[in-house]
Amino acid sequence: MASGQETSDSASRAINLLGERWTFLILRQAFFGTRRFNELRRTLNVGPTMLGDRLKKLVDSGILERNQYRASPDFYEYRLTEKGRALYPAVRAFTAWGDRYLLDGQQPPLVFRHKPCGSAAPPQLICSDCGLEIDALDVEVEVYTSSSN
Amino acid sequence: MASGQETSDSASRAINLLGERWTFLILRQAFFGTRRFNELRRTLNVGPTMLGDRLKKLVDSGILERNQYRASPDFYEYRLTEKGRALYPAVRAFTAWGDRYLLDGQQPPLVFRHKPCGSAAPPQLICSDCGLEIDALDVEVEVYTSSSN
Repeated sequence: MASGQETSDSASRAINLLGERWTFLILRQAFFGTRRFNELRRTLNVGPTMLGDRLKKLVDSGILERNQYRASPDFYEYRLTEKGRALYPAVRAFTAWGDRYLLDGQQPPLVFRHKPCGSAAPPQLICSDCGLEIDALDVEVEVYTSSSN
Repeated sequence: MASGQETSDSASRAINLLGERWTFLILRQAFFGTRRFNELRRTLNVGPTMLGDRLKKLVDSGILERNQYRASPDFYEYRLTEKGRALYPAVRAFTAWGDRYLLDGQQPPLVFRHKPCGSAAPPQLICSDCGLEIDALDVEVEVYTSSSN
């Protein structure tokens, strides 16, 4: 059982960093391959100050990296780092949930196709040890002690 | 490639609903089995007005359901609905990412044990069709058309 001391734990830090709407949408857009400032502005319909601020936050936290791709005038693009790419399961799982429960029966506007097999089926979260699909009811949460492994 | 029209899509709606810190922490706590108002207050160290407001939002959106468990005075508990339980992969994937990247090498404070096999290994997101682990670079995003299936 979790107690108050866990309110600064991993999930809480992750949501503090990424729970803000624009930050999350910029991150998601990075997974779609949108890398340039003006492209992000247009695609997300977001003001330049807001966009600049959120990009800085994502760069400062090591999720995106900023690279110059043209000089005088200078232009930059923003690419996912390894830390950023590792957010894919979370972003994808959120989207799959929204597709199923928040669209009032409408067709999801975006199709995510797994290129190796060509399937657009929703993803599954499995236990990396036994390979079974993870159901919330099958998971026990313990506060870490040195005998937890 | 996604264009501006998708800013009201599934992921965006999901983050509008759950990106707020307290809402997310209450949801996560529900997965740990914390169901009662006073228990939530104590565990999360959150004020009653804030907590009541966020619980109402989670009930109104069909993620939690409110049941009376004692009368005069009336006491209620909040349980995850099917829609709420389906958020588990997203919450778990976010936590796994935070465990790996936001703790500066510290041991994660919470251990998630998969009861069927006893493992505390991190979860994996796989394609439910071919069973391969999903990597962001292997996914293609298309705007839905009637030939997308």
